[in-house]
Order: sequence, then structure tokens, then C-alpha cells
Amino acid sequence: MRYFITGGAGYIGSNLTDRLLADGHKVVVYDNLSTGFERFLLGAKSLPGFEFVPGDLLDTDKLAKAMNGCDFVFHLAANADVRFGTEHPGRDLEQNTIATFNVLEAMRKNAVKKIAFSSTGSIYGEPDVFPTPETAPFPVQTSLYGASKLACEGLISAYCEGFGFQAWIFRFVSILGERYTHGHVFDFYKKLLSNPDELFILGDGHQKKSYLYVQDCIDAMLLAIDKAGERVNILNLGSDEYIEVKPKLSYAGGERGWIGDSPFILLDCTKVRSLGWAPRVGIRDAVTRTLDWLSKERWVLDKR
Amino acid sequence: MRYFITGGAGYIGSNLTDRLLADGHKVVVYDNLSTGFERFLLGAKSLPGFEFVPGDLLDTDKLAKAMNGCDFVFHLAANADVRFGTEHPGRDLEQNTIATFNVLEAMRKNAVKKIAFSSTGSIYGEPDVFPTPETAPFPVQTSLYGASKLACEGLISAYCEGFGFQAWIFRFVSILGERYTHGHVFDFYKKLLSNPDELFILGDGHQKKSYLYVQDCIDAMLLAIDKAGERVNILNLGSDEYIEVKPKLSYAGGERGWIGDSPFILLDCTKVRSLGWAPRVGIRDAVTRTLDWLSKERWVLDKR
Repeated sequence: MRYFITGGAGYIGSNLTDRLLADGHKVVVYDNLSTGFERFLLGAKSLPGFEFVPGDLLDTDKLAKAMNGCDFVFHLAANADVRFGTEHPGRDLEQNTIATFNVLEAMRKNAVKKIAFSSTGSIYGEPDVFPTPETAPFPVQTSLYGASKLACEGLISAYCEGFGFQAWIFRFVSILGERYTHGHVFDFYKKLLSNPDELFILGDGHQKKSYLYVQDCIDAMLLAIDKAGERVNILNLGSDEYIEVKPKLSYAGGERGWIGDSPFILLDCTKVRSLGWAPRVGIRDAVTRTLDWLSKERWVLDKR
Repeated sequence: MRYFITGGAGYIGSNLTDRLLADGHKVVVYDNLSTGFERFLLGAKSLPGFEFVPGDLLDTDKLAKAMNGCDFVFHLAANADVRFGTEHPGRDLEQNTIATFNVLEAMRKNAVKKIAFSSTGSIYGEPDVFPTPETAPFPVQTSLYGASKLACEGLISAYCEGFGFQAWIFRFVSILGERYTHGHVFDFYKKLLSNPDELFILGDGHQKKSYLYVQDCIDAMLLAIDKAGERVNILNLGSDEYIEVKPKLSYAGGERGWIGDSPFILLDCTKVRSLGWAPRVGIRDAVTRTLDWLSKERWVLDKR
């Protein structure tokens, strides 16, 4: 198989790239390096069957050309800057919604009909049901990020119906592990390094978060693509565990860390578990592995 | 109040314009006349307090300028060509999703914080529950039109959360009445006029449709805006009745009229009825009024 991975120089994308190459597949990574790092692809670059195309998803010609000859698309590239959505409201529309449309059109041009997509548990807004199943009541969006991912899911589903595509849409919780370069744990680590005596937390510290280890996430995606055979497969991807963001020191206050932050995301992952998957690494271990990696790769702290 | 109505030269928009002017309000209509007709505004133009700005929602400067001084936005403009979505997949993205984003940004620039939006029952895809409530299980989109309306709803909701907007999102069934210029009834009428001996029907004729009379639709919107005071108010807007599309003659076959067509849309309208609204005109009367109007306004048949 020849896989096309948007955002393949990013955190999850580069780990997925390594896995697919190790499994003997060919991989084309398409990434504009806005948040990805070419050094995450150093291992991949030493292997045959790998190709890196630096490019933007808004460059539709380059995108379509790069996808030529591929069999399957992992569309992982996104503006993942959930928190500052209201400072630049057009960014989620452009880099998520329009970019996804461009990926789908490039697939049509190249007769590629299978796509896996990284959506988000944020799409449930502020649900009434925990853990939240895929069939939760029709949610109301609370962030521009969630709204854009909702738009992407809708587009992908409509392409499945209208153009005979098949899709695997994964609604992620936060993912931890090697090459993790942004998010709560990253921010906390960076703040504590610069001032070990104080940690300033957005919100009231009681926000609960569920994390999944990156290799467990990849296991689940690959298994689901193999086992789930509907036209549109929508799967929550998380852990049954959660932890409270509750350091000891000072708080900005408020139930939410920022406008549009979900105070709690805990997904009902019965559906993906029914395919035979279970996470192998718990949250505590996932945090430890992440911190170990960050402490070895200090360069990444200066890049963000 | 000074209302800004996108798509105000269209079917529902022009009826709403007349109503608001009759109620003593000021109205600015913004419409690119791609599917609207300036002659629908002839009555409005004879009244003080009315302004027509011919313009496109993709022209962001003109849009923002035209909205200056308005208090409330009815965003009704849309690509409503549900059926041919797969022939030009970018159109729904551009004219619905991006256009809605532009409306929201124009509102931010003008400090207008209230918006009513015409969404669609198609957003429920192919639901399992009939009549379908607003809190139906998280739907899977089956048309590019539905997907784009979903994206619009998400954007509007996120602006409510992020920028303190208040929204009334109406999920319509098909609307019938004076100035109706496209849809099943229009197509059937036109076909029967040209050949009264045969009517070729897409699908198997058993598609069920629920229709609402346009003045009932306007009553419901105005009442809901007055009575429903949540930050994001999402309301189905339809009739409890439905009819089968079942003429006698020849059928294209298949359960659906076209890819992405919903075989059945019947909305649970308990929520909007709880505000004190009920339709006053039944489906049969609504069809009759529509046909009466079409028979008097033959010019419109040549324009489509």
C-alpha cells in the first residue's frame, strides 16, 4: 500500500509514518512544516519507500500532484491551536475546513477513495452524557476548532455518499507520547522548567482530561481501518481513564481554561474496543513517557 | 429595528422583508440575485425604511459596509441546489460555509450580535427516529448541502460562545407558498405544463415530504426570536403532516430521488410549538396556494 499522510511531519503523523514504513508500506508525507518538524522524519528518510513533499493544503495543484499513485489518505494536518481560535477566526475555516475540502478534491482527481481523518472529542461541545458515545445527542459547538472539525466530518461523509468514498473518522481525546509538542502537558513542563516554584493554570484546575498514548492511538486506527467496513465509520478514540488538571499553585479561575475549552472530555470507546482494541499504556505512563521524551529533546521547547 | 436580510430577494427572504416592513421595521436586503428576483422587492421598494444592496457574500468589504447600522441579521442566502451538489462540490462550501463565515465576520465588524439562520432538516441525514427531534443522535451527513449547513450551524454556535453572539437556527422542511421558485412542486408543475400526459419522477415515488407554508414559517421565526432566549436556539420548523411524492406515471427508480436526497424528512416540532406557534395552513392548502401563484406568475417558469 502507498499511503498519503497530510501532517505527516507532525506529532501523530510522523509516528504513523514510522509505523507504516516498518510494516513494509510506502508513505508520502505532505506537510507545510507550520507545526511539524522535518527532523521527526529523519528515520523515515533513511528508508526506501518514503517520500516527503513539503507543501500546503491550500496549494491544490501541488497537493493533487503529490497524491498521484497513492491508495489511502490519512488526513491528519490541521490547525490544532484550539485555544486561540477567537484571535484568528478564519484560521480554522481555512486550515481545517477548506484544507479538508482540498484533500477530498485531490482524492477525486486521483481516484483515491479511502480516507482516515483525525477529528476530535471537542466536537461534542459540552455533552450531557459521560462517557460520551458517538451517537450522543446532536451537539452544539462551543469552539471554532470543534466547528471546523464538524464541518470536515460532514464534508467527508457527504463525499462517501456522493462519490463512493469510504472513511474512518476518529474522534480523539488528547494524545500523549514521543514527539508531543503542544498541549497542557507541554505547557506545564515548559512553565515548570522556567519557574519551578509556580505554575499558573488557566481555569480552576478541576478540568478533567482523558489522554491516550500515541502508539495506542495508531494501533486503534490501523485496526479500525482493517476491521470496520461501513461506508462511514465514526469512532471515538480515547481511554476510559481521566485525570484532573490540578496542580497546587495559582489559577486563572473559571470552569473553563479558555472560551470554548471543554471542561471535561471522556469518550465512550465501546465501539472501537468491540473491534478488539484496548489501550496498552495508561495515562500515568503516557505522561511519564511524554516527559521523558521532552527532557531528552529540549530543542522542541525553544521552537514553541 | 433595522434588519439585515441576506437572500432577501429570494423566496422566503422577500416574504420576510414584506412582513418586517409591514410591522414598521427597517430592512436592508443584501442579495446577489443569483436565485432571487428583484421584482419580488417591488412592493418593498415603494416603502420608506427599505434599502436594497445588490451584492455577493464573498465580497466581504461590500457586505460589511452594507450591514452598518443594522441590529439583527437574517442570514437566508444559500446555495439551495441540493440535488446537483456532486456536480460542483465547491459551491456549497463557498456559498454556504464560507459565505456564512463572511456574514459572521461582518457582524463582528459592525457589532451586530444577533442572527437568525435558515438551516435544514437535511442536516439529520437519514435519521432512525421520526419525527426527528433537535436532539436526535449525532447525524452522519449524506449530502454536500446538508454538510455545508452543518458547518454553518457549527460556525454560528462557536461565534455565540466565542464572541457573545445570540443565534436562532431554524431547521426547515421544504417551504411552499407565494414566490416559491424551485423544488419538487415547481418541477412537477413545469413538467406537467409542458407535457400533461406524463410525469417523470426521480426515485420510486414513495419519498415522503413534509411541507410548511411560507407565512407560517415566518410566524414561527419571529415568535421564536421573541420567545426563545438561550444563547444558541436550535429549532425544527415543519409541519406534523407529510405527503408522499406519488404521481401515477413513470419512475426513475431507487429509494432516493438523487444521491444525498433524504427519503423522508419529518421533524419533531414540539419545541417551537411549545413557544405558542402552530401552522395555520395545511400541506394541501399550501400546495394549492403555491400552484395558484405559479399559474399567475408564469414568467418564473422561464427563469428556471
